[in-house]
Amino acid sequence: MPGETFAGDDAAVLSPPAGCLLLATDLVVEGVHFDLSIGSVGDAAWKAVSVNVSDIAAMGGTPLHAVVGLSAPGGIDADAIVDALGQAAASYGIGIVGGDLTAGERIVLAVTIAGGCASGGAVLRSGAGVGDDIWVTGPLGGSAAGLEALRAGGAGFPGGSESAGNEPESAGGVTGSAGAGSVRSALADAYLRPVARVAEGRLAAALGATAMIDVSDGLSRDVDHIGCESRVGIRLHSVPLAEGARLEQGLGGGEDYELVFCMPASVDVRDAFALAGLREPFRIGVCVADVGERTLDGSPMPILGWSHSFG
Amino acid sequence: MPGETFAGDDAAVLSPPAGCLLLATDLVVEGVHFDLSIGSVGDAAWKAVSVNVSDIAAMGGTPLHAVVGLSAPGGIDADAIVDALGQAAASYGIGIVGGDLTAGERIVLAVTIAGGCASGGAVLRSGAGVGDDIWVTGPLGGSAAGLEALRAGGAGFPGGSESAGNEPESAGGVTGSAGAGSVRSALADAYLRPVARVAEGRLAAALGATAMIDVSDGLSRDVDHIGCESRVGIRLHSVPLAEGARLEQGLGGGEDYELVFCMPASVDVRDAFALAGLREPFRIGVCVADVGERTLDGSPMPILGWSHSFG
Repeated sequence: MPGETFAGDDAAVLSPPAGCLLLATDLVVEGVHFDLSIGSVGDAAWKAVSVNVSDIAAMGGTPLHAVVGLSAPGGIDADAIVDALGQAAASYGIGIVGGDLTAGERIVLAVTIAGGCASGGAVLRSGAGVGDDIWVTGPLGGSAAGLEALRAGGAGFPGGSESAGNEPESAGGVTGSAGAGSVRSALADAYLRPVARVAEGRLAAALGATAMIDVSDGLSRDVDHIGCESRVGIRLHSVPLAEGARLEQGLGGGEDYELVFCMPASVDVRDAFALAGLREPFRIGVCVADVGERTLDGSPMPILGWSHSFG
Repeated sequence: MPGETFAGDDAAVLSPPAGCLLLATDLVVEGVHFDLSIGSVGDAAWKAVSVNVSDIAAMGGTPLHAVVGLSAPGGIDADAIVDALGQAAASYGIGIVGGDLTAGERIVLAVTIAGGCASGGAVLRSGAGVGDDIWVTGPLGGSAAGLEALRAGGAGFPGGSESAGNEPESAGGVTGSAGAGSVRSALADAYLRPVARVAEGRLAAALGATAMIDVSDGLSRDVDHIGCESRVGIRLHSVPLAEGARLEQGLGGGEDYELVFCMPASVDVRDAFALAGLREPFRIGVCVADVGERTLDGSPMPILGWSHSFG
């Protein structure tokens, strides 16, 4: 292997899952997905784990193991980043079973998660049927609004984002009233510390979700993916917004990592989520027969995309 | 997911292996593991796949699936790199089942391979016993000698290293006689296009190898790993050298990706390799009871390390 392996052997030796094996990999790159002037490397580590866990959650799966690759300049405390990755993984109940540390000009975090399927198999993007309701597990736009606030310098750092080896160049300060500050911190957390919805994804799968995706690119793009893969039209009637987020952030601001799923109308989704102690999901629309339809509240839905780039 | 996923769903859905699941991940970083002045991005893609397959091979396992993360600047033809990754994976009989493309200042290739174990389980570094013979699947030092030749500008590009989207700044020319040129090209290939020894690793496992590792850090360091993990001494009597390589390159030049394995002396390794149509391996030493022993031909063996860094 190039670089230093921080697990014992050349490869991790694991028990395979009983059902299908899920593999998800995503990179989180300094200057593209995170910016050390508005977040810590601990935030970056959190995001690198969460976005991959979210991909497993979006299949209705259970995350089992993580392997991580870390490229970082000499002045960075790589062990602190590995620790932060390990803490993030542990918060999802998984361990980092192998990895690779190497030099590099910018910090790059490459996380791969292996997961297992629900007993009914993985929930794809392609199974939605006409008449299925469209649900989302939480309000949207918080991540985009949080990034906007952090860039404006007024969001401050949320309490949970310790700095793992790097101090931000300008942390900014919480401005306005205490109430406004806490909204802004919640928004900052939405961007810096997104939470993958594993329990929600598993429950949706168990309830018979016909299609599922995580809101990474933005709701409008992500439901469009379901529409295209499932060959159904998408008729939304509402977009639940995070407090402080605008509609275009709810539609086009990605990286919220809530789950969008389609479900036969006969299923009592709200009741099942309540019984499981999970936050009440939002019914936001329905799959329709006109495969070309992409509407919100009766009007054409703009397919908005949020730029993840800091460049 | 940040970036663009070029497989269809959030995560790849796969059949788990029948035996244990192996996971290996390694990064290959521009300016650290490859240098576009002496090799192409196609070479980098090849190496990124091969070093990970080699980690699976070193467990006696079979590579099954790859997921890849690619971070690259805007001017780079990412599709060509993905194609090169796919070709390299296909040469090992595996497919790229998912991945993530994203921006970045330097090219970073993050490959993760999932594999399956041999029926007897994975071969660890820790199982060697006193009296076991130490074998290596091929001559060593070729990669380090190849890098030296390429840096000196006289090695030329091997025929097989097409340029995928990037022309090298200075390709150099093949110098000297045709014979010297072909040796140099073989050395350049050893560095730019290392081959993971999957069939050899599987056969060694089937024959009852007690410990195995790939020669990535350099023979002296890699046998030292086996010695430490297995709590045996290492007594080498010879180091097979690639044509054109010096002893210190054979001992300390890593990235050869041959396999070192330990085997009870009763096993006819040469015969089994010959029957399988594989190149004859070299018996290079024996595991001894003095756990502190690290000798070569009766003298203390220097633990040499080859720097992978271009910085």
